[in-house]
Amino acid sequence: MDHPARPRRRRTRVSAEPTTRPVDYRHLTSPLPLAKGYSDDRIGEIHAAALTVLQELGVQVNHDGARDILARAGALVAGHQVRFGHDLVEAAIASSPSEFTLTGGNGTLRIGGRNTQFLPVGGPPYAMDTGRGKRSGTFEDFRNFIRLAQSFDVIHMTGPSVEPQDIAPNLRHLRMMRVQVLDADKPTFVYARGAGQVADSFEILRLRHGLDEAAFHSRPHTYTVINTNSPLILDVPMCQGLIDFAAAGQMCIITPFTLSGAMAPVTIPGALVQQHAEMLAGLVLTQTVRSGAPVVYGGFTSNVDMKSGAPAFGTPEYVRACWGTGQLARLVDLPWRSSASCVSNAPDAQSIWETQMSLWGALTGGANIVIHAAGWLEGGLSASYEKFILDIEQLQHMAELMQPVRWDADELALDALREVGSGGHFFGTEHTMKRYRTAYYAPWVSDWSNYGQWEETGGRTATERAHDLWQQVLARFKPPDVEPGTVEAIDAFIARRVEEGGAAPVS
Amino acid sequence: MDHPARPRRRRTRVSAEPTTRPVDYRHLTSPLPLAKGYSDDRIGEIHAAALTVLQELGVQVNHDGARDILARAGALVAGHQVRFGHDLVEAAIASSPSEFTLTGGNGTLRIGGRNTQFLPVGGPPYAMDTGRGKRSGTFEDFRNFIRLAQSFDVIHMTGPSVEPQDIAPNLRHLRMMRVQVLDADKPTFVYARGAGQVADSFEILRLRHGLDEAAFHSRPHTYTVINTNSPLILDVPMCQGLIDFAAAGQMCIITPFTLSGAMAPVTIPGALVQQHAEMLAGLVLTQTVRSGAPVVYGGFTSNVDMKSGAPAFGTPEYVRACWGTGQLARLVDLPWRSSASCVSNAPDAQSIWETQMSLWGALTGGANIVIHAAGWLEGGLSASYEKFILDIEQLQHMAELMQPVRWDADELALDALREVGSGGHFFGTEHTMKRYRTAYYAPWVSDWSNYGQWEETGGRTATERAHDLWQQVLARFKPPDVEPGTVEAIDAFIARRVEEGGAAPVS
Repeated sequence: MDHPARPRRRRTRVSAEPTTRPVDYRHLTSPLPLAKGYSDDRIGEIHAAALTVLQELGVQVNHDGARDILARAGALVAGHQVRFGHDLVEAAIASSPSEFTLTGGNGTLRIGGRNTQFLPVGGPPYAMDTGRGKRSGTFEDFRNFIRLAQSFDVIHMTGPSVEPQDIAPNLRHLRMMRVQVLDADKPTFVYARGAGQVADSFEILRLRHGLDEAAFHSRPHTYTVINTNSPLILDVPMCQGLIDFAAAGQMCIITPFTLSGAMAPVTIPGALVQQHAEMLAGLVLTQTVRSGAPVVYGGFTSNVDMKSGAPAFGTPEYVRACWGTGQLARLVDLPWRSSASCVSNAPDAQSIWETQMSLWGALTGGANIVIHAAGWLEGGLSASYEKFILDIEQLQHMAELMQPVRWDADELALDALREVGSGGHFFGTEHTMKRYRTAYYAPWVSDWSNYGQWEETGGRTATERAHDLWQQVLARFKPPDVEPGTVEAIDAFIARRVEEGGAAPVS
Repeated sequence: MDHPARPRRRRTRVSAEPTTRPVDYRHLTSPLPLAKGYSDDRIGEIHAAALTVLQELGVQVNHDGARDILARAGALVAGHQVRFGHDLVEAAIASSPSEFTLTGGNGTLRIGGRNTQFLPVGGPPYAMDTGRGKRSGTFEDFRNFIRLAQSFDVIHMTGPSVEPQDIAPNLRHLRMMRVQVLDADKPTFVYARGAGQVADSFEILRLRHGLDEAAFHSRPHTYTVINTNSPLILDVPMCQGLIDFAAAGQMCIITPFTLSGAMAPVTIPGALVQQHAEMLAGLVLTQTVRSGAPVVYGGFTSNVDMKSGAPAFGTPEYVRACWGTGQLARLVDLPWRSSASCVSNAPDAQSIWETQMSLWGALTGGANIVIHAAGWLEGGLSASYEKFILDIEQLQHMAELMQPVRWDADELALDALREVGSGGHFFGTEHTMKRYRTAYYAPWVSDWSNYGQWEETGGRTATERAHDLWQQVLARFKPPDVEPGTVEAIDAFIARRVEEGGAAPVS
């Protein structure tokens, strides 16, 4: 079945020349129709229940200044608990932009609508490759993953990469920022680990882009991710980050860590009620600090393994949560962020179907930003070099689906069909010869050779091939050009701050 | 980033008992919105171009009787070339059912609408497992894959499995049918390899289900796949199959083998023009033989590697072809068949992203039947035991997405949120305890244990785990019960046909 006239049987070598297809994945717009996890009425019930949670239970806000700001805005503060009236929440929803532009070194990205950005792995404490195995993240790993992210235009921003545990915590942000702004020219991530680190990071960004404070504050140049301490807590550094980023007009992705069955209710709609409430609480704080501050709705709801309590990703429940989050984000008219996450402990078959489920869940849910889209492994505890390469191939497949449809005069190929007729083949037709070099996506990691050729060349799996590829990409790496004097200015600033002791992270 | 309050840090063992979630994947309806590969106008142009091809070029029909039937119906026959007028094609489109019921041993399947069926690997000449490697398919392999298909309710029909090359071609169909009807009770595949083999196969089905010829002909009990010899040829056995299955009112899946760049134009719209024309030619033959005969539109268009001419599957072009085929099938109001195909030579990471792309392409394109959904490898040249197991896990994820949304009174979990408040966790709440055993899909192949536990238990990949699982499933296998005397009746018939020399395949 499905075998007649296989070209394998009558293979014709078309050309020894490689395909020369020009690709540009820097600006992607999704054509996928939007899936619904629940009916619009149910989504309305989830939104209403979140408003009830905010009014009746409220959120524990551990940052004194944040409580003062919220009290002045009209929130009800009792001890650390802050309760939010519907009007306050609806006003924040109304003032936050539904779409905005993020300016990075290499141009601008439009955030929102059907625009789609892929971001690399961010935050794992460990690094992993199939040669050296799993170990604590180092500065070298941090830089390597930034360089890998810079090397592919299907990756649209840099991220927190791997935690460089071999750098002192009070100086870590300085070393991390230097790599992000000098080894890459994409919009840059800044950790919200206290006002001192954020101020240093903003200064390094201003030096990199030659901006004074007013110009920097005039539009978003960087982003952070704010994770609530689910359930229903905003801790000190997260509040400080919301305040500092909103005040500077920079982008906040507010992502509740609502793991259904553990830190959130065991039902996905219940977990979405909590996710929605926690995100809205953070949104109110940003819009109170600066009306119109750019915020992205972060969706991270997944379920846990009820036998162990361990988080799971790429599950059917995760996909449904993505669809529901997309509906909720559109209801409050915010861009939204999802993830291409997995829990597998190795860059194996499981890691790929979990990542594909997460990725398709995000894209069919209309996600604008997909974080951890390359290199995430082990539920985010490890950054994997091989997984990064395997994921780039998958992201490039998705990016191809987002390319505009080409439709030239001969697209329907009627003349080619007349030329070939019954029983011929199209290898030699003018229609084919004019187009074959650019007709199709040319895979990078995928091996399309037949079994014999594949066996002769070692019979290696995609993961084994990826082990070579990440090393080749790093060996070829060239940092982007910067304006003369930029490196010196950044290094002088960093040297001064090191002398002053840097800035300890706040927790 | 994305790490605060990870339950890994404060894991609580909920229960030693396994989850006891009842699942039933026998009847699946897709909730996915339908993706479009091209605008409705472009799809109309593709349909119109296919009608032009059929009228102007026509199709080479190598079967004398088929040409006579088509000539009597009003087609223009010149030598072996048969040209079709628009009216003839439109009449066939009008008379073929858009939805129908397929009756199998274990009940009925609704074909069409948003109903979705998954079918196992079918047709590879080779079998493969990670222990014994790749070798020619045997009767034992054929039976093993039928038994694997029977063992999972997410697989909805049996298929041609692996080619049992150790059985004489004239007797092969008898041995294959015996296994399909006695080791399984799902709707059954019959190869169209000549009238003699088809008649024998129908007789064995009638003996299995206790049907006389009239009852058998009254509705579809079995199916075949008709591959055109692209471009624009219908060969002798394919024509005979269309005639025999239509006359008996059995289901024909007409699948042009339109590999863009090789046996079809290098543009995907051009390949779809050819696919559509070839399918419609076969449709006309079936509807001329018996008006209302059940036909499924087979979509198999993919691109080839233009450097080697080798077919590729799960590519971005493949996904767009799926979307376009879904639009064309809905335009002519037929159910449609796609595939979960891949070209990887091993059950590795590449094989999974190719299968996932194919599967999501099929489902977002609204495919009703997904063939080769478990066990397909190496572009269909090999059936892989491990891939079969890995695919079952992926299909069960998809089946979970097709389950109706549960929504009980406490779905929004407001009382649980009130009970836990800020900073607690939900492991112990009544809301969780009442639901955790059945809340989530419980994975089968996926390993959710943490890195330490995973390493202690051997640190095995999903593919290594799958190698054990297929052997366990086969060791546990029990054939379904049959009516007393059925086996004896089938064996008596087969003994007689063996004595008579069986039936040689027609080619």
